[in-house]
Amino acid sequence: MSAPYELIYYTGVPGRGEHVRLILEEAGVPYKDTQSLSFDEARETVTTWLAGDGHGNPPYFAPPLLKHGDLVISQTPNILLYLGPKLGLAGSRENDLYRVNALALTALDGLSNEVHDTHHPITAMLPWEDQKEESKRRSKEWVQNRLPTILAYWQRVLENEERGPGPWLLGDTFTYADLVLFQCLDGTHYAFPKAMKQARETGKYDKVFKLWEDVKARPNIAAYLASDRRQKYQDWGVYRHYDDNDVVAE
Amino acid sequence: MSAPYELIYYTGVPGRGEHVRLILEEAGVPYKDTQSLSFDEARETVTTWLAGDGHGNPPYFAPPLLKHGDLVISQTPNILLYLGPKLGLAGSRENDLYRVNALALTALDGLSNEVHDTHHPITAMLPWEDQKEESKRRSKEWVQNRLPTILAYWQRVLENEERGPGPWLLGDTFTYADLVLFQCLDGTHYAFPKAMKQARETGKYDKVFKLWEDVKARPNIAAYLASDRRQKYQDWGVYRHYDDNDVVAE
Repeated sequence: MSAPYELIYYTGVPGRGEHVRLILEEAGVPYKDTQSLSFDEARETVTTWLAGDGHGNPPYFAPPLLKHGDLVISQTPNILLYLGPKLGLAGSRENDLYRVNALALTALDGLSNEVHDTHHPITAMLPWEDQKEESKRRSKEWVQNRLPTILAYWQRVLENEERGPGPWLLGDTFTYADLVLFQCLDGTHYAFPKAMKQARETGKYDKVFKLWEDVKARPNIAAYLASDRRQKYQDWGVYRHYDDNDVVAE
Repeated sequence: MSAPYELIYYTGVPGRGEHVRLILEEAGVPYKDTQSLSFDEARETVTTWLAGDGHGNPPYFAPPLLKHGDLVISQTPNILLYLGPKLGLAGSRENDLYRVNALALTALDGLSNEVHDTHHPITAMLPWEDQKEESKRRSKEWVQNRLPTILAYWQRVLENEERGPGPWLLGDTFTYADLVLFQCLDGTHYAFPKAMKQARETGKYDKVFKLWEDVKARPNIAAYLASDRRQKYQDWGVYRHYDDNDVVAE
């Protein structure tokens, strides 16, 4: 299908839409992005799509959305699943798509959804200030117990040499799961710089931090990150920095 | 591939593994299930798989796992994505797989992950008693604001008649997303019976509650639910009932 890929998302934060941008940027394909609109116009576009009847697809609960011709789909890992094979970023062996999708889902669970919930443990419908005490408690627990568990898992995946000695999650085969993990590590570092520095300095997760650097250095990604298409983290996105939450493990 | 499908999961609760059982039961295919083991043996089997090197696949973070020959994959929506097309339960039109996957992911987000977090808003690594006050606050907010938003979304999907007048999420085409939504509604009803009764009585979500009944009445599902393969909900699973949390909207 020769239709362009169109990302429908908010403007002004990387957010969940960033995973979609990264796969398209890595592949070097042109795409449309509501990010080129003003803040209000992008928000209105998202709202209009969510309120609509799906235009031949089931209605959507939340952005990002990907439009490709008549197909419009939601859910970040689902959009990546659709794009991955088309862009040559979903592995090289039979059934790799399911291996890559599992890795992407696991990265989003632990280092995106869980990190989001550190600043909104009670409800996303109230501001942080109204759940500050719970947020501090959840952040402390997360840094102490979940972050090491999650980083240790990714180190273990990267130490597994059944698919070659690395540096990627599927050994020598670069896939979109590497892009997802990169963005998750990058956002978590914005939210918890002290804990991420502490974790890095233990040396126990060297392959994980190396993957973060290696993705950043890929030519198309490096060019993208240096461009004005890369949005800055803001404290209304998935990843937020609050000094109160920025603790280290004991 | 003629290898059997093997579900690797804990014994004693429906849990996330239940979504895998339901798709296999609906399709009427034989499968192996670690549920046939004792509680301790099943837990040990899960632990052994998680600690291993992936046996030709990347290591896994959490169960359920599906083994099919040499392929072993994790992540509930990923397992369903793998099984759906093989079992004829992933839609009838081009790209329906991505529509079905989006619906399944959205059901799991709102009516499984969010419901889980009502009893563990601070961390899954501490017992409920240690986060009881936060759990009560989150449950109250969830019942008041999230449950109506989520049920209204599913009602809107079911009112969308672009694919026929129903009764399924893709109109007249039954898919595994219907099974996922059924199990999510069923588990949420166990956790929050008062709020679900209240929501039902408003009449605003009649198509959602009808889907729950319609799935329950499908011959293979009805036989499964009446069998001893269907586990009871227990208060150590994804769905837990606490009287303190079982509130109604104001």
